[in-house]
Amino acid sequence: MKKRILIINTGGTLSSVNSRKGLVPGMRSGEMLEELQLVSKNLELETEDFRSVDSANIFPEDWAALAERIGQVCGEYQGIVVIHGTDTLAYTSSMLSFMLQNISVPVVVTGSQLSIAHPVADALENCRCAIHMAASGCPGVFVAFNRKVILGCRASKVRTMSFDAFESINYPYVGEISSLGLHIRRENLLKKRGIFRPQTACSEKVFLLKLYPGISPDILAYLREKGCRGVYIEGFGLGGMPFLKHDFISAVKDAADHGMVVLAGSQCRYEGSNLSVYETGLRALEAGVLQAYDMTAEAAMTKLMWVLGQTEDKREITEYFSVDIAGEVTLP
Amino acid sequence: MKKRILIINTGGTLSSVNSRKGLVPGMRSGEMLEELQLVSKNLELETEDFRSVDSANIFPEDWAALAERIGQVCGEYQGIVVIHGTDTLAYTSSMLSFMLQNISVPVVVTGSQLSIAHPVADALENCRCAIHMAASGCPGVFVAFNRKVILGCRASKVRTMSFDAFESINYPYVGEISSLGLHIRRENLLKKRGIFRPQTACSEKVFLLKLYPGISPDILAYLREKGCRGVYIEGFGLGGMPFLKHDFISAVKDAADHGMVVLAGSQCRYEGSNLSVYETGLRALEAGVLQAYDMTAEAAMTKLMWVLGQTEDKREITEYFSVDIAGEVTLP
Repeated sequence: MKKRILIINTGGTLSSVNSRKGLVPGMRSGEMLEELQLVSKNLELETEDFRSVDSANIFPEDWAALAERIGQVCGEYQGIVVIHGTDTLAYTSSMLSFMLQNISVPVVVTGSQLSIAHPVADALENCRCAIHMAASGCPGVFVAFNRKVILGCRASKVRTMSFDAFESINYPYVGEISSLGLHIRRENLLKKRGIFRPQTACSEKVFLLKLYPGISPDILAYLREKGCRGVYIEGFGLGGMPFLKHDFISAVKDAADHGMVVLAGSQCRYEGSNLSVYETGLRALEAGVLQAYDMTAEAAMTKLMWVLGQTEDKREITEYFSVDIAGEVTLP
Repeated sequence: MKKRILIINTGGTLSSVNSRKGLVPGMRSGEMLEELQLVSKNLELETEDFRSVDSANIFPEDWAALAERIGQVCGEYQGIVVIHGTDTLAYTSSMLSFMLQNISVPVVVTGSQLSIAHPVADALENCRCAIHMAASGCPGVFVAFNRKVILGCRASKVRTMSFDAFESINYPYVGEISSLGLHIRRENLLKKRGIFRPQTACSEKVFLLKLYPGISPDILAYLREKGCRGVYIEGFGLGGMPFLKHDFISAVKDAADHGMVVLAGSQCRYEGSNLSVYETGLRALEAGVLQAYDMTAEAAMTKLMWVLGQTEDKREITEYFSVDIAGEVTLP
């Protein structure tokens, strides 16, 4: 019996069309089915349209709805492909990794740098990779792009134009297409650690604060007044923050003392944060920050949103950030 | 006659010492002179202490003072080395590129991932590279790290632990140490385009806003109320911003209409932004944003601060962002 794969289209470049407003979402998934079937040897494809938006216009409520939809239908398919704009693809794949943890089938997010209508587009090759990963029987949330497969919460868009737009950050690639076919490195897959039950609650009361020299600590008081429950700070180097003159760390302590969850990581892309090396990190730890270690910004932000959706208990929140839920973090 | 090189120490890991508070700044430049002299064959070194801080504690006022100091002394030396913590090194080297444009000698910023006191540190090798670049006679602001030389406004710290911590982003390396010695690729150097006169004014009334799905547009109104004159937005992909539901672009237009300078770039590290491709970018352009193209975040933020220090005239500000001042941007 042929394996059944569901392709859920959310829009993005892959299904975009030219308009006077620039490239805009447009094609329906049914219009792409014939081409997609060409790269899906011996598989039975079905498509459905979920959204038709540029992924700059994907919002947290879309993640919850998408995860719920996948939760509803995943029992009927051997695998699911999500077509998504590349701009926020890594945020979506990260959030799905948390919301769909322990899912029994592959959920593979893909997109492209050129529309499927373009004669030399990467669209079909990316779908080919995603579809065959979806048929691989390896459960979990993944990104398929440019003949590589990345763990969903380790992907990041690093190039704005090239076809190799995504990288696996601080984690090995899960799979690669070569003359070996789709070669999956099983040692890099996650082990199932519980039963599957979609956990789609998440909080939008968060903020992403990327430090720069001269930043005013006032921003933290503003965020607190606005009811912000959590902030992810992209610190310097290993995660350091200023404490001389503009005393940022005191403001962090004030925020943490008032119940705000402060997660600290690095604005350097590789190798992650470790706040226990320098005084600029140790003081932040003393002020009550939690560490993001080697999470991508996309994973750190979505984990923060997701954790705050699961609980309001400070102890539980701290515990969530001391465990690796979906492969997102290498703990020391 | 021996070439004279001045080494200005600002602190950072290179001159750090262990303490109960973690690694902290400590060593004075005079204590390092003997070791530095070892890697400075046939050169006459002088050192001076400017600051002794972890570079997370470097602020815009330090940049102005440092640039002024370099402006005062640069006539007496063939080259200048600045020892700096790695955390904000790329911000400093970017800002010096603007403040010290058309300087007649090399100004080479360096640092290290391990203290010079550590037996296997990269400190001396980095100083060796910096000192010899400073003696090269090639004027301009550079970063020397891990045997490579990077244009000051193209450097970015990308790794938090490895010795190859810095990359040249969207621009070729200017030099490299190999069996050829220090090989400088002269075609990648900037041409002098005016006389040297330190231009150290800069504005701190800026903010760095990295987008994430679900960001509330309210932040822009807050920044305006706080008297913020400019914001650099790290948008999605080619620089796109949301306009559905949470209508971020309307808030951008409102900010721009009220005189705030809104500069838009990409949170993807490579290849830069181009807002004229997708509707999510075109609408932002219509709202009045300026484009950062392929500038690093460090260059975009420091250019914004520097430009706002030079003028309050909207037309002039726009013009500054339409030119490549220090090699920081590839214009389309």
